[in-house]
Amino acid sequence: MIVELISVGTELLLGNIVNTNAAYLAEKCATLGFSCYHQSVVGDNEERLIESIHAACDRADIVILSGGLGPTKDDLTKDAAAKAWNRELKFDQHSKELIEQYFNNRNMDITENNWKQAMVPGGCIVVDNENGTAPGIIMEENGKHLILLPGPPNELKPMFEGTVTAYLRELEPGTIYSQTVKICGISESQVETVVVDLMDEQSNPTLAPYAKMGEVHLRVTAKAESEKEAKKLVKPLVKELKVRFGENVYTTEENITLEKSVVDLLLANKLTVSTVESCTGGMLAARLINVPGVSEVYKSGHITYSNKAKRKILGIKKNVLAKNGAVSEVVAREMAKYAAAITKSDVTVSVTGIAGPDGGTPEKPVGLVYIGCSVCGKVTVKECHFNGNREKVRQSTVAAALVLMRKCILEYFSQVTFKD
Amino acid sequence: MIVELISVGTELLLGNIVNTNAAYLAEKCATLGFSCYHQSVVGDNEERLIESIHAACDRADIVILSGGLGPTKDDLTKDAAAKAWNRELKFDQHSKELIEQYFNNRNMDITENNWKQAMVPGGCIVVDNENGTAPGIIMEENGKHLILLPGPPNELKPMFEGTVTAYLRELEPGTIYSQTVKICGISESQVETVVVDLMDEQSNPTLAPYAKMGEVHLRVTAKAESEKEAKKLVKPLVKELKVRFGENVYTTEENITLEKSVVDLLLANKLTVSTVESCTGGMLAARLINVPGVSEVYKSGHITYSNKAKRKILGIKKNVLAKNGAVSEVVAREMAKYAAAITKSDVTVSVTGIAGPDGGTPEKPVGLVYIGCSVCGKVTVKECHFNGNREKVRQSTVAAALVLMRKCILEYFSQVTFKD
Repeated sequence: MIVELISVGTELLLGNIVNTNAAYLAEKCATLGFSCYHQSVVGDNEERLIESIHAACDRADIVILSGGLGPTKDDLTKDAAAKAWNRELKFDQHSKELIEQYFNNRNMDITENNWKQAMVPGGCIVVDNENGTAPGIIMEENGKHLILLPGPPNELKPMFEGTVTAYLRELEPGTIYSQTVKICGISESQVETVVVDLMDEQSNPTLAPYAKMGEVHLRVTAKAESEKEAKKLVKPLVKELKVRFGENVYTTEENITLEKSVVDLLLANKLTVSTVESCTGGMLAARLINVPGVSEVYKSGHITYSNKAKRKILGIKKNVLAKNGAVSEVVAREMAKYAAAITKSDVTVSVTGIAGPDGGTPEKPVGLVYIGCSVCGKVTVKECHFNGNREKVRQSTVAAALVLMRKCILEYFSQVTFKD
Repeated sequence: MIVELISVGTELLLGNIVNTNAAYLAEKCATLGFSCYHQSVVGDNEERLIESIHAACDRADIVILSGGLGPTKDDLTKDAAAKAWNRELKFDQHSKELIEQYFNNRNMDITENNWKQAMVPGGCIVVDNENGTAPGIIMEENGKHLILLPGPPNELKPMFEGTVTAYLRELEPGTIYSQTVKICGISESQVETVVVDLMDEQSNPTLAPYAKMGEVHLRVTAKAESEKEAKKLVKPLVKELKVRFGENVYTTEENITLEKSVVDLLLANKLTVSTVESCTGGMLAARLINVPGVSEVYKSGHITYSNKAKRKILGIKKNVLAKNGAVSEVVAREMAKYAAAITKSDVTVSVTGIAGPDGGTPEKPVGLVYIGCSVCGKVTVKECHFNGNREKVRQSTVAAALVLMRKCILEYFSQVTFKD
């Protein structure tokens, strides 16, 4: 079946925001086995929205619209979809109650325009929004499917992954099964060099690389009549990838992130962890603490952004900082070591670097970062050079710190070795 | 004049990459004063590409295609554009020489398929590519303009900013100017209620709301013959918005974020700041530290995720935690107070809450967060109720903490009052 995406929003046409929803939905639809030949972006204009819906419905079986479901006057997607398919908007009591509940839970007053969100096209399936007030909508007619999702990614994603995915799975009779081999510690081009032969020769299963910050995901996808058969097609290729990438594969599970793999490793080895951060200023801790259940292993975190904080909180000597500079192998090592002593954690990670835009010198340019990791007293320090703006340097640092933690713990406890 | 964007590439349709080129081109075109009503994405398929070019040329005066100009078999944009406009591809000696030069400069062998890039549609303007091998193309016919740009952003951007911008400036005499009024501490629907009359009555300038996490941006955009005149149209509406939203407007500057406005407020009042976080686990510090120059004000941060860390690092008594629970008004207050004592900072912010998915009870559900803010000894605690998953609760908390910091500092030092 063919799916087409329409992203709605003048902010996209003006380039105010990057269309990450389209990339997300496109990837999910490909995984579900749908073909996609067109994506489009239209503004908050009813006439052009209706035209776009008609054009997309002519070309595709399933049209997914995102954005324009909110309470404001600009939010026209529901009106346009209803008009395009000759339906009336009707009041939905259930949605009204959920909106009330949303505001009551937050002790907020409900302004009148919010009730607009409880109006839905006649005969549609209403998809509850657990993270916002605008419900999603599914409409069906003559074998065509129109799906309306809210624009905010934190509302769109859970809605798509829940009800909408279940709905779409029913539509595609063949089964698509895919498994992702998640690799860290190797660059995308290195990964591609290793699998170029496999990418050329495969048609079912297919192999597609996705570059993420500090990691590469290789997605193996097969289509077959049953899930059992599709899995059978996927299995040997996943096995081959595990052989080729060895310990750099951190998981083949969909719901395991790099930070979760690190937390799982800590749990499995009954280790506690603490963080000390300078340029990342809490981002590493924040990413670890996004893993539910991290309280079992996470002891405490310290953000020692200034030299004074490095001295006062960690006890690093003034002359050590003066001699080596705060961004140095020596200071990263001491930060990890002293944090271990202070927090009495089995594993500590330290970060010190120059995130920019200022602070760089010819000897120590913007993007230079030292990451220290102490595992039961054994300290490893990695020197990194990252490109990009302040945000990018800091995100790359966090990913590299997670990769280093994983490597150090595995080397210490499992005596494995890494190719890198 | 109307511009339309077509992004070419199967990798976009599969969601392998995010379409940052479209956002970049859209923003640049808006700034140049062009209207844009449609963007589309098509794959590396000649037939669909030709169809898309025809459809876009029917709707717009200028069609900009990006991607698909490279040397491989998949690169079909030039062939499709030539066929769509009934032109022949011809060999271009100048482009051939630049390609040779590119490879020679890098001591690389030229593979045969590269010469394809020296073929250009008859009668076109060739745009030199200083950062790659595929030249850009400009075609003109019956008042329509077709512009072909290479896909890699590092080739597309310099080409657009050089020759293409100069070409486009000749086409459009008018100028677009826009200014954004950034508001915090009020919901999107509340904001709209306040400005609904202004949104209805305006056509030039226009007024558009953009909801962000914890804030709302109102963009005022005007079109005029000169930048001076456009600015003159924008000014009174921006002034009116500032009157209506008072202290809830934190800036009207494009490059000032909520966190930067807080850091600027700290700098202006010569205040130092420290953070103590539980459920946000470093996210608040990370957001503050994303502001370049924050080192002037930021002293240190502590992540006291466990009760033990709250006791050990901050000195909160065991019985206070036992009696009130870690997520309580009392503990948020003590966290902020003790952090001020330990770090000797003028401003301290504390966060304690239940981010979920586990840990909620009927009395203290997931999403309950207390934020404490101490300004020179005066402590304010705000109770918040957020919806959504763990990530969303934590992001909402960080935004609310920044809003609270701003409010407390302004109330303390400027005796202003807030409507909320």
